[in-house]
Amino acid sequence: MTVCIGIDLGGTKIAAAAVDLTTGVVLGRRVVPTEAHEGPAAVMVRMAAVVEQVISATGLERNQVQGLGIGVPGVIDPNRGHTLLLPNLATGWRDVPAGPEMQKLTNLPTRLINDARAFTLAEANLGAGKGARNVVGITLGTGIGGGIALDGHIYLGIDMSAGEIGHMTIDPYGPPCGCGNRGCLEAFASGPAIAASGAYAVMRGYTTIIGDLVERDVNKITPDTIMRAAQQGDAVAIEILERSGTYLGVGVSNLITVLSPDTIVIGGGVVHLGDWILGPVRREIARRCFVTPLERVRVVPAVLGGDAGIIGAAVWASQQ
Amino acid sequence: MTVCIGIDLGGTKIAAAAVDLTTGVVLGRRVVPTEAHEGPAAVMVRMAAVVEQVISATGLERNQVQGLGIGVPGVIDPNRGHTLLLPNLATGWRDVPAGPEMQKLTNLPTRLINDARAFTLAEANLGAGKGARNVVGITLGTGIGGGIALDGHIYLGIDMSAGEIGHMTIDPYGPPCGCGNRGCLEAFASGPAIAASGAYAVMRGYTTIIGDLVERDVNKITPDTIMRAAQQGDAVAIEILERSGTYLGVGVSNLITVLSPDTIVIGGGVVHLGDWILGPVRREIARRCFVTPLERVRVVPAVLGGDAGIIGAAVWASQQ
Repeated sequence: MTVCIGIDLGGTKIAAAAVDLTTGVVLGRRVVPTEAHEGPAAVMVRMAAVVEQVISATGLERNQVQGLGIGVPGVIDPNRGHTLLLPNLATGWRDVPAGPEMQKLTNLPTRLINDARAFTLAEANLGAGKGARNVVGITLGTGIGGGIALDGHIYLGIDMSAGEIGHMTIDPYGPPCGCGNRGCLEAFASGPAIAASGAYAVMRGYTTIIGDLVERDVNKITPDTIMRAAQQGDAVAIEILERSGTYLGVGVSNLITVLSPDTIVIGGGVVHLGDWILGPVRREIARRCFVTPLERVRVVPAVLGGDAGIIGAAVWASQQ
Repeated sequence: MTVCIGIDLGGTKIAAAAVDLTTGVVLGRRVVPTEAHEGPAAVMVRMAAVVEQVISATGLERNQVQGLGIGVPGVIDPNRGHTLLLPNLATGWRDVPAGPEMQKLTNLPTRLINDARAFTLAEANLGAGKGARNVVGITLGTGIGGGIALDGHIYLGIDMSAGEIGHMTIDPYGPPCGCGNRGCLEAFASGPAIAASGAYAVMRGYTTIIGDLVERDVNKITPDTIMRAAQQGDAVAIEILERSGTYLGVGVSNLITVLSPDTIVIGGGVVHLGDWILGPVRREIARRCFVTPLERVRVVPAVLGGDAGIIGAAVWASQQ
């Protein structure tokens, strides 16, 4: 039995567990608030405490744990094990030696991984992509992340920066993106992009029930609000999901055309919109991909749910 | 010394040579017309004759030749060694068992490869990408092809269909492409796309010297015509190259964002436009890529020239 501990470091919470890599079974799961405002040092002490809790909850001997993987929401230097920028954590974690520090605090070999790459690694090895050869993972949430797993290993590119699917340009003259580019996939199909389209429709006074569903407070609009409106036949809401799904479909089509993967796994909060968003994705693929044999490309929702980040970080630690 | 024979099968000519894979030296090069109108059987007999000529020209013993690789302009089934569609060859070569047939005719182990993938394999191993880890190859010509080489091996995807860079969607609502999609990179930045922009400008009576350079015959306009006009300060010509280079730059940016390669090698006839096209490409990359460390991404012209197809096919045969 190979066991590693995986941590999923998020903007609001830290989730950790021990993962049996042969079966994918998740043991001793613990979740605590991140309290990122306290700064990286305090958060790292908290993460180390969680690791201890996981080890005692599972009854594992320390020497049965092969390593620690930490999935982080942002850019890392994988060679030095430093975070370079975690935009959603207070203070930004610029050039924080999180890998070496956590190794010191836990006495476990420690590796960092980007959270979307961790998702991809988990789904490719133990989730919806199990048994597939070439897997593209896409996380649709506040941002759009991704990764490429070939034969069960993350394709790294330079410094593990490959797979930044959310920052592909989908429309060269599209709206500005937080990254500095314009027309990024993220600007069309992320949760906030979908919600903002709903807010715009309400503010412009379009004929739609979206505003009614949030008591006219556009701050409360989420992708789920738009879906509920669409389910009631609201034409504006249907059009918003159609449009986001179409742009997402253009991005997925380009990934198929360039990478010809056998499996594309889509996860993250927005994938709960189901066929409202995946329908247009599938339609665009059929319209746009003519070389890759599409009957052999599966486009599937993720299956590991909230554990994907933990599992992927543990897989990453085990592949050291 | 490992020697393989490479054939570059084109719409108008067949080029073949023996390649010393340790040095990249090309020996006994032979070029004959394809005469594709005679049909696949006759063309294959001609290719087999060329192989014999190459062997006797180099003075190699037959058993010194490890195998035969054939680069073809189109879609193949690499497992069966069949061509599925070679659109630029008369009759289209639909489901022709070219691999097994050529093996029978030459008595050499024979493998087929798409010509743009062969270009990539050659430049990655023995050309501009030598020593690089992850290489993306792009061929800019009548069409736009490409390939991805990881650690010197072609990344295949399903049935070696990965790398169809020319059919990435660059503008979701762009002009129709011959492949069935719309807004493909090929529809903006291929040789014919650039020439057509020039023809349009002349036909619409724009103030440009492009027409003068071809005696008012728009059929004669080539990318080179546009470049010559641009070199004389022609604003319309400069704008055409700027626009095509910009769209190409969007495509290259997306490849960097997704694959984070260390080297991108651009070849094919259109690359002779040099900085008229590569200038806008570099500018778009700087505008659009914010995660990959760009200082470690080289975007370079191909160095193997017309031999890349032969060399890549030979490399492919040697990697059997």
